[in-house]
Amino acid sequence: MRRVYFTPGPSALYFTAEHHIKYALKHGIASISHRSKQFEDIFKAAETNLRELLSLPENYQLVFTNSATEIWEKMTDSFINKRSLHLVNGAFSKKFYSVVTNLHKEADILESPWGEMPDFTTNQEVQYDLIGVTHNETSTGVKTPLDKLYSLKDQHPEALLAVDAVSSLPVVDFDYTNIDTVYASVQKAFGIPAGLGVWLVNDKAIEKANQMKERGLLRDTYHNLPSLIAQARKHQTPSTPNVLNIYLLSEIAKDMVHRGISQIRNDSIYKSAIMYNMLDQHELLKPFVTEKALRSDTIILIDSGGRTYDLIDYISDHKMQVGDGYGKMKGKQVRIANFPTHSKEQFEMLVDLIEKFH
Amino acid sequence: MRRVYFTPGPSALYFTAEHHIKYALKHGIASISHRSKQFEDIFKAAETNLRELLSLPENYQLVFTNSATEIWEKMTDSFINKRSLHLVNGAFSKKFYSVVTNLHKEADILESPWGEMPDFTTNQEVQYDLIGVTHNETSTGVKTPLDKLYSLKDQHPEALLAVDAVSSLPVVDFDYTNIDTVYASVQKAFGIPAGLGVWLVNDKAIEKANQMKERGLLRDTYHNLPSLIAQARKHQTPSTPNVLNIYLLSEIAKDMVHRGISQIRNDSIYKSAIMYNMLDQHELLKPFVTEKALRSDTIILIDSGGRTYDLIDYISDHKMQVGDGYGKMKGKQVRIANFPTHSKEQFEMLVDLIEKFH
Repeated sequence: MRRVYFTPGPSALYFTAEHHIKYALKHGIASISHRSKQFEDIFKAAETNLRELLSLPENYQLVFTNSATEIWEKMTDSFINKRSLHLVNGAFSKKFYSVVTNLHKEADILESPWGEMPDFTTNQEVQYDLIGVTHNETSTGVKTPLDKLYSLKDQHPEALLAVDAVSSLPVVDFDYTNIDTVYASVQKAFGIPAGLGVWLVNDKAIEKANQMKERGLLRDTYHNLPSLIAQARKHQTPSTPNVLNIYLLSEIAKDMVHRGISQIRNDSIYKSAIMYNMLDQHELLKPFVTEKALRSDTIILIDSGGRTYDLIDYISDHKMQVGDGYGKMKGKQVRIANFPTHSKEQFEMLVDLIEKFH
Repeated sequence: MRRVYFTPGPSALYFTAEHHIKYALKHGIASISHRSKQFEDIFKAAETNLRELLSLPENYQLVFTNSATEIWEKMTDSFINKRSLHLVNGAFSKKFYSVVTNLHKEADILESPWGEMPDFTTNQEVQYDLIGVTHNETSTGVKTPLDKLYSLKDQHPEALLAVDAVSSLPVVDFDYTNIDTVYASVQKAFGIPAGLGVWLVNDKAIEKANQMKERGLLRDTYHNLPSLIAQARKHQTPSTPNVLNIYLLSEIAKDMVHRGISQIRNDSIYKSAIMYNMLDQHELLKPFVTEKALRSDTIILIDSGGRTYDLIDYISDHKMQVGDGYGKMKGKQVRIANFPTHSKEQFEMLVDLIEKFH
């Protein structure tokens, strides 16, 4: 039996990924020119299938970067003229804030302890270019309830609302009319090898970047948003992209459409529910996030204290791999990914196993 | 028979790549954490094997980026304070110059028509931070003779000599003591799917970037050289990298070491020689580069004029794929890659085929 990766990312590949990689090798997809019609068709298919999977409105455009980290930088360059606001409740929401300040832009922060969520009441007197919020904090297993997330738009209708869905897309069901830009990495819930960032931007966000460019405020990098958009409209990229991953995204998004995104989302809720229910009853372990409304469906954190490495090793002995705590919580927590590739049967096995841990 | 890609990049995968990808899938290498010991071992193996393959001196460090295009930007940020000089003889050498000026740094240019090489006599009165030279121009099939290339170092001993070896590494045999930084893309002569840049930097280059940082002149991006170096010394990367490609680089560099780099280089010379010899005799076609010392071993350009698409289609009918001319030469030239994965037998077949074209 092959080892099953429940690590929070890179994680297990989507169960059809291996088939698609083998097909790609057989048909030379890693060798085609990124300036060819064949590549443009792959880009087009990725866009069409992702649009269908996410029910993405027409006024959104898909562009590719190398990683979500790169998207933080490009958002800073493309959108932030004066000031941004960041809702921070873990390492990754904090990193976006750090990227902004490292690039010498002004930024405010509303922060909560790990495992909780900051108060979403903002100072409406301040004008922000962008508000950054993490839908699903990979470091803490906290998800932001969608009504809270959308409330930021009501408080600051002029600002761009930028949503980090790195470890929740495509499981989360956004109302895209309430947000302006969403981004993800493929090595998490999409189940694709690392090395591609997926960035969705609406007309308003594109317009903002164009204004920044016209006013000479935009750094003319190869991956700035206007250059990415200009190329994407031709189903092209500014430089040689990760062609294989874009092909995998097109095929896996199609597979997910066929399986049914509602089914995927329902399965996700079922799997997280049985895990949290078991943890709530466990004699040694407990869920790290105490408030039920904030418990992520896709990244489940166990407060495992001094038994962390015993638990990781015990699970590993059964050919399953879970993640360590992140950063300062290393050795104190276990992180478990619940992604579309993880079957209900695999998850039931993992829940049974952890239940018996003593 | 599978189609053989002689396109200039992405090109045919190295003949062992498929085996390594299948092994990686079977052993979960696309799923491991990039913060794990296992990843560090892969990074270490890539470095060790590449060091051996290239006979890279101890004072050089390997870092990974997403592409060579990204390396142009990071070199501009990391090395150029006042002014750079660019030897330009095609589209890619010109692009580095454009990246520098787009990022508002001063740059001088010594330019020649396509198919030729600029005069390497520079103005030694001017102090340059960096001199950019392309060893092998992928757009024109011109290679810079190494003595010419090293002469830049004699003319400007203080400047960093930055060498674009995107389509010639590891076939070219550099004396690394005469240069300061070299970069390549893996989707060309290494035969790995696109999505990884290989950047080699010596102590002097690292020191220059550190000075830029200390003086507050370095943009604090996630992939700036000091942050890449700090992580690379721990065999780590600043953000989730293309783990699969780093694994493939480690394995393919090892395979090339076993095959023998001298053998690879000799085969390369043999293959290019039979192609150029045939073209010199052909009744319809001729080599684009007339001066023999400037003819690239790895990217061979045919002046095919109005018969370009006839030639491409004729070769395609025999399950072989060659490249179109680049940019303004589209439809007027054919570009053929001669990379380590292309066997002597495959190349002999291609030469025979083109010889019969009428």
